[in-house]
Amino acid sequence: MTLNAADAPFAAHLSGLLPEGVLRPVEPRYLTEPRGRWQGQAGVLALPRTVDDVATLVRAANQWRVPVLPYGGGTGLVGGQVMPDGPAPLVVSLERMNRIRAVHPEENVLVAEAGCILADIQAAAAKADRLFPLSLAAEGSCRIGGNLSTNAGGVNVLRYGNTRDLCLGLEAVLPSGQVWHGLSRLRKDNTGYDLRNLLIGAEGTLGIITAAALKLSPVPGSIGTAMLSVSSPKAALELLSLSRAQVGEAVSAFELIHRQGLEFLTEVLPTVRQPFETPPEWCVLIELGLSGDGEASEALEHLFETALSAGLADDGVIAQSEAQRYELWTVREHLPEANRLIGSVSSHDVSLPLSAIPDFIKRAAAAVAEIGPFRINNFGHLGDGNLHYNVFPPKGHSRTEFAAVAGRVQRAVHDLVHALDGSVSAEHGIGRLKADDLIRYGDPVKLAAMRAIKTALDPVGIMNPGAVLRT
Amino acid sequence: MTLNAADAPFAAHLSGLLPEGVLRPVEPRYLTEPRGRWQGQAGVLALPRTVDDVATLVRAANQWRVPVLPYGGGTGLVGGQVMPDGPAPLVVSLERMNRIRAVHPEENVLVAEAGCILADIQAAAAKADRLFPLSLAAEGSCRIGGNLSTNAGGVNVLRYGNTRDLCLGLEAVLPSGQVWHGLSRLRKDNTGYDLRNLLIGAEGTLGIITAAALKLSPVPGSIGTAMLSVSSPKAALELLSLSRAQVGEAVSAFELIHRQGLEFLTEVLPTVRQPFETPPEWCVLIELGLSGDGEASEALEHLFETALSAGLADDGVIAQSEAQRYELWTVREHLPEANRLIGSVSSHDVSLPLSAIPDFIKRAAAAVAEIGPFRINNFGHLGDGNLHYNVFPPKGHSRTEFAAVAGRVQRAVHDLVHALDGSVSAEHGIGRLKADDLIRYGDPVKLAAMRAIKTALDPVGIMNPGAVLRT
Repeated sequence: MTLNAADAPFAAHLSGLLPEGVLRPVEPRYLTEPRGRWQGQAGVLALPRTVDDVATLVRAANQWRVPVLPYGGGTGLVGGQVMPDGPAPLVVSLERMNRIRAVHPEENVLVAEAGCILADIQAAAAKADRLFPLSLAAEGSCRIGGNLSTNAGGVNVLRYGNTRDLCLGLEAVLPSGQVWHGLSRLRKDNTGYDLRNLLIGAEGTLGIITAAALKLSPVPGSIGTAMLSVSSPKAALELLSLSRAQVGEAVSAFELIHRQGLEFLTEVLPTVRQPFETPPEWCVLIELGLSGDGEASEALEHLFETALSAGLADDGVIAQSEAQRYELWTVREHLPEANRLIGSVSSHDVSLPLSAIPDFIKRAAAAVAEIGPFRINNFGHLGDGNLHYNVFPPKGHSRTEFAAVAGRVQRAVHDLVHALDGSVSAEHGIGRLKADDLIRYGDPVKLAAMRAIKTALDPVGIMNPGAVLRT
Repeated sequence: MTLNAADAPFAAHLSGLLPEGVLRPVEPRYLTEPRGRWQGQAGVLALPRTVDDVATLVRAANQWRVPVLPYGGGTGLVGGQVMPDGPAPLVVSLERMNRIRAVHPEENVLVAEAGCILADIQAAAAKADRLFPLSLAAEGSCRIGGNLSTNAGGVNVLRYGNTRDLCLGLEAVLPSGQVWHGLSRLRKDNTGYDLRNLLIGAEGTLGIITAAALKLSPVPGSIGTAMLSVSSPKAALELLSLSRAQVGEAVSAFELIHRQGLEFLTEVLPTVRQPFETPPEWCVLIELGLSGDGEASEALEHLFETALSAGLADDGVIAQSEAQRYELWTVREHLPEANRLIGSVSSHDVSLPLSAIPDFIKRAAAAVAEIGPFRINNFGHLGDGNLHYNVFPPKGHSRTEFAAVAGRVQRAVHDLVHALDGSVSAEHGIGRLKADDLIRYGDPVKLAAMRAIKTALDPVGIMNPGAVLRT
């Protein structure tokens, strides 16, 4: 169906419907995304304050057949938040809907508007002596509506699940402009189809999430962090099993780091203090959070000893203070920034069945080596089977020299992931970057069902056209 | 759209398409349901062995516009498994698709066909030294396809979630007869809309689940069970908070029991041994499962002592052996049977925000008392805010005497649940029993979206017509 640009007459129409201050001049920051792959466009920019404002905007866009681009923190890595072609959209930024509507510590529930910055939600939970466990690099600027729309992952998925698992209910404006009042705080509610999970991860193509009821958790009484060197990814997986056998769900993070990542830090971020004098080929960052009287550092020492005697680990550091914990996490959290500074030829957010990971790492390295003399920084959330598999030019060379083969590298990695029953988008989503991958690797029956659902809920096709499903 | 009965010509057509033994004479057991509210009908009964058989059946039904009724273990409590009116359906029982296709202990994954009995899946997990935590009264006869289609709950939801939370991937036949191959074993996979969760809980109205990849958990090293008497539901909720503060996720069950239930046991199941000499007004059954070296009975003793000194509990039994654990659970698990023998006027599977529960209990009792001198057996999964709120005739009277006011009782209870932001179907689903409630209490925008999705995926309307959505 043909869409129209959000032009001056449309803006004039909107201004008659909305309170002052909702429509704003378009600023350049709404037209870029972190990886600099696309230049967005915007016909009209709206900063609604209420769900009714959002409903008014979407209803009008529906009548005028104008594309709508929901905008959160702008930190997405797959281009879901920019519309580089087609008629210029109405950009709806949720940033002024940033109220924590309610905190129910006794129910472990917090109700937040979509524009709340993730770190602010974490802080509001902490103030009520609770934990909101979603944690990722962009937490200081990403907004919960975007986290929900992309079903964001992060470092605590192993214990607490993806964003989907942290959401009890939603308020959302559907493509018709109608408001779904679904802010349930219930743990069990089997009344009909799961509209909540349909909107979560739909990347703004089925509606605009305006608020969410989020699950909180008790704050662990004792948190411990360690970095252990392991002989191989297989040993890392065995260590994961061992740690879960010893402390169960208390393992909240289990991050794999390759030597290449530590060497990148030395190369471009030398002020980041590293725990090992000689970087091991593989190491893991483990975090435990124990309830009650348990001492996490003791549990980690016990784990370390068992791992040493089982030959799974050969060196390690257990944080003895909050400062040391912070230092270990600083290493992990600067890996993406080091990658950015080095400049990747191709980067991949993939997941695999846990048992396929050692095989994948071996075969992917071989496949990539066939294309060129690349450096590989492979790290990620091993506990979830999620690897950030990034391919870099050899030292002294720039990514631009390999631009011509970047597509081949990506294809080789994704083909292998697919062959091993993995996913080519573990936690970042599809956006515009992977819309073709979805067609190539996705199940055709699922894809047809997705298209049918999209058409049913958004017959005019106004919601974030071109994201997820190619138009 | 008009549907046709599954008649002899249709059966003849099917028999040419399917291996021998798939089509069977209709037996009466497929036409009843546990509460005896409906008498089902069936034109043709099919017992497919493979997903391809199922696809053939659904494709043919689609062409002939014949309704399809997926059939699992037949244990559902809301009539989703019987079709009492309209053209006689093709009943598709998954009972011969009962193979455990794979167990991946190192990934904590088990792949089961839809016809597997829940207890068999539990046993297969146990054989691999893992836990499949879904547990409910019907586990000896319900089948996992039905558990998934109704998003079944049970006694371990507090720790492990509903069936939805235990599923990583699905294989399913959509209403078109196409097979969705979505048996992912991945913990993270953000490639498009969440078709999995849309089919889970859809009660067979959007397709037939034929297999699932299920999440396993480590078996806790030490399990402990206690029954503590508490002074009020509010005290029970405070005890829940206390227990989670002390042992975190290790609390796997937290069941509320009212004196009425214990008295019913004495009345109709006197051989069930009860732990208290004088039944307390309220008590809770708590189960903990600790990993590693922790001793669950010690943790329960610690909890009991703290609860006693805080005035939250005043008496209790901590199981000292497996036999005692079994005894405590026997009390809990015979409550539904006792209810059945007494015969309820009206029974309700409701959930509420945790903090609303004390208020609900008080106000519901008052509302019910206005209608008649009823006995109330209110018990359930307090940790999930899920109460089985059942209303019975006074002693010496039969339910039939109160048949005329049963509707008023139900309405009073459901109206109050709705007013307190609760759900009128916590874990049993909508089926046919609550299709009107869904219209009365459901969000109209969600309902419209559900209808649009149903029409998009099942334009002819063959899948379980009349369940969930009124036709």
